[in-house]
Amino acid sequence: MDKKMNQKNVIIGVADTTFSRVNMFPFVEKAIKDAMLQNYVNFNVTIERYTVPGVKDLPVACKNLFENHNAKIVIALGMVGGEKIDTLCAHEASTSIQQAMLLTGKHILEVFVHIQEVKQQGKINKKKLFMICRDRAYKHAWNAVALLKSKNELTPFAGHGRRQGSKHAGEIKIIKKRVH
Amino acid sequence: MDKKMNQKNVIIGVADTTFSRVNMFPFVEKAIKDAMLQNYVNFNVTIERYTVPGVKDLPVACKNLFENHNAKIVIALGMVGGEKIDTLCAHEASTSIQQAMLLTGKHILEVFVHIQEVKQQGKINKKKLFMICRDRAYKHAWNAVALLKSKNELTPFAGHGRRQGSKHAGEIKIIKKRVH
Amino acid sequence: MDKKMNQKNVIIGVADTTFSRVNMFPFVEKAIKDAMLQNYVNFNVTIERYTVPGVKDLPVACKNLFENHNAKIVIALGMVGGEKIDTLCAHEASTSIQQAMLLTGKHILEVFVHIQEVKQQGKINKKKLFMICRDRAYKHAWNAVALLKSKNELTPFAGHGRRQGSKHAGEIKIIKKRVH
Amino acid sequence: MDKKMNQKNVIIGVADTTFSRVNMFPFVEKAIKDAMLQNYVNFNVTIERYTVPGVKDLPVACKNLFENHNAKIVIALGMVGGEKIDTLCAHEASTSIQQAMLLTGKHILEVFVHIQEVKQQGKINKKKLFMICRDRAYKHAWNAVALLKSKNELTPFAGHGRRQGSKHAGEIKIIKKRVH
Amino acid sequence: MDKKMNQKNVIIGVADTTFSRVNMFPFVEKAIKDAMLQNYVNFNVTIERYTVPGVKDLPVACKNLFENHNAKIVIALGMVGGEKIDTLCAHEASTSIQQAMLLTGKHILEVFVHIQEVKQQGKINKKKLFMICRDRAYKHAWNAVALLKSKNELTPFAGHGRRQGSKHAGEIKIIKKRVH
Repeated sequence: MDKKMNQKNVIIGVADTTFSRVNMFPFVEKAIKDAMLQNYVNFNVTIERYTVPGVKDLPVACKNLFENHNAKIVIALGMVGGEKIDTLCAHEASTSIQQAMLLTGKHILEVFVHIQEVKQQGKINKKKLFMICRDRAYKHAWNAVALLKSKNELTPFAGHGRRQGSKHAGEIKIIKKRVH
Repeated sequence: MDKKMNQKNVIIGVADTTFSRVNMFPFVEKAIKDAMLQNYVNFNVTIERYTVPGVKDLPVACKNLFENHNAKIVIALGMVGGEKIDTLCAHEASTSIQQAMLLTGKHILEVFVHIQEVKQQGKINKKKLFMICRDRAYKHAWNAVALLKSKNELTPFAGHGRRQGSKHAGEIKIIKKRVH
Repeated sequence: MDKKMNQKNVIIGVADTTFSRVNMFPFVEKAIKDAMLQNYVNFNVTIERYTVPGVKDLPVACKNLFENHNAKIVIALGMVGGEKIDTLCAHEASTSIQQAMLLTGKHILEVFVHIQEVKQQGKINKKKLFMICRDRAYKHAWNAVALLKSKNELTPFAGHGRRQGSKHAGEIKIIKKRVH
Repeated sequence: MDKKMNQKNVIIGVADTTFSRVNMFPFVEKAIKDAMLQNYVNFNVTIERYTVPGVKDLPVACKNLFENHNAKIVIALGMVGGEKIDTLCAHEASTSIQQAMLLTGKHILEVFVHIQEVKQQGKINKKKLFMICRDRAYKHAWNAVALLKSKNELTPFAGHGRRQGSKHAGEIKIIKKRVH
Repeated sequence: MDKKMNQKNVIIGVADTTFSRVNMFPFVEKAIKDAMLQNYVNFNVTIERYTVPGVKDLPVACKNLFENHNAKIVIALGMVGGEKIDTLCAHEASTSIQQAMLLTGKHILEVFVHIQEVKQQGKINKKKLFMICRDRAYKHAWNAVALLKSKNELTPFAGHGRRQGSKHAGEIKIIKKRVH
């Protein structure tokens, strides 16, 4: 990614896995490129990538991206197998990603795609899997850029039922006479 | 919110999400305004808001509200999807909110509304969902203000079976000859 | 509680909730009074109370009782709702209470009463609920006082199958020729 | 336990509970005595005991044994009730024992016996329960002594399918032409 | 393992258990030897081994390998029993291994083999168990060496559906007109 002159450079960390069956990195890269082309940010963004075997190796990789590679935010890309034990592994990884965030005071956007989301009668819908990966990674990369800008960049969308990996669910607004 | 003259100002942090289908922020705002109008507090309150994608992004946002934005207490507003995996996500978020509290020594009022609370035969009762959001957010904002006042502000209500998101369950009092 | 002259004063923290349908504080108070009247301790005890909305708000309250209110031990009184999600909430609270203990190096006696313990065919046995609350709170307050005395105060009862909330289960002693 | 002259003295901590229906302390004591009689160790061992109400009170007791009572290793003796909620309590205790180990850098041998291991058609097999307690406590006390000696004391037994609470399962050795 | 002259020496820690029914250490040793013979690394590797009773004893052993034995990365070899309670034990161990990574900022490759993976109708397929152990330990030892080299050594394989303990699942590539 080109550095624009006289601009501050901000590093986004991206951690991904060899376990995943979809390479989600290009979707992140595209989102960040789009954000810069649309001048959504007034700073330059470069990516530091860190590849590990599976989701359980992601949390320390994320923490290292903050502490050793100067990342200001990290996107963690992981795929979770279709068995019950895989869900538990992802839970362990997520719990640890939470801790990495608290220890560093920085956001990690967790982009986990579960095989179970696309498994029907024991068969994996590969096309749907790919689509979810792309949509979730692309949208969360935008979220990462938004969080980099400020804590209120996403405020106009609070309560809007936004989704990553499927279409947005939308806001529910019911105005009734108050109960209080 | 207006600052009253010569009054100490206290910051309440409010973290919310774009995932939620109901914007719960106005209910919090209303409660705090009501508390001030009723002179429940002898200090002025201002709100610092922080919006993130989903519940898993809330814990570090809450911690940042304490550490970077001077909040004395935080209200975390989140909605939890209706699938089993969503319950697990909320569990991870809650576990991390617990840690954020221990690390900072400050309260985070967790206002999580689960789609499962209003799901019947696969259908979401939107009106009920909205009502739970309003009631839970409004009441917990009052709780936040009470906890700001002192550790014994809620003591007169200890054991009273208070509920947020539904009506209070009430106290059970059975006086019998003592077993000890 | 009266301070006896020339006696060291020790503070026991008690954290409780407005969610609970039974006010368990008086049972704790009674136990501590009984322990002092029976000269079980040669120090004076005073209680610092801290009331929060629900069980998830207890861990940081307990930690604050240690760090800001000079408590030497804390009793956490909580009631857990009858739904599956409530069990998960209690699990999060308990996990965090564990951490509060490790961080402070002090004991927190967890007195949690679960609605499920007294629910039969969807109906809550209120009398039984009250009895469990009283028995569990009263006995654990005695345990708290014992732990304050020394790490070996309860040693004579190790392996005795003691219960709080029901009658003791008793020790199992089987003497057979050794297998080693 | 006698101190042998000119020998270094090492403290093993033992934490146990009043909840347990079997007093497992004597089994630990016997194992340590046996290890010394057989000159398995060239140092003297003394035991510091710490008794608490239940398994959830063990983690901080273990940590205190390290930090306040100079223990070099700790054995945590606990019994877990037969209900689902008891399994969850044990899980919370175990998670916290893990943290106590990481915080201190020292081993805690967890000797937990679950009522479920000996429950058949709602009935507890008391004799079997006692036997499991004895075998598990005795063997883990030997493990504790081994770990005190060095990190490679147990290496000759790696992969041997050793069990505590039942007889050893044994090693599986299949030599085939290599796949790599 | 011979030290090559003038080469930097790097220590890989290996923690294993006496509970395991397969000795996985030789598979790790073989992988590291192969990596050095193939000049995959330009540094010498030596192994520090640490043997404990079971998986729950691994996390602190791993941490100690980093802090007391100068390991730069650790491989944790464990076998998990076939009962439900064993899965929970492994979950506790994994959660703690996660924390050990965050506390040290270093990777621990978790090589856990579950009896459930090879259990059919209550019978253990011993041959399959052995094969999974060998494949998983061997491949993860290569992963460990790769991570030692750099954070991008595995990047060419990101999204390739790599598996340890079975054959690789492969990448899913679906090029369609973009949705964004």
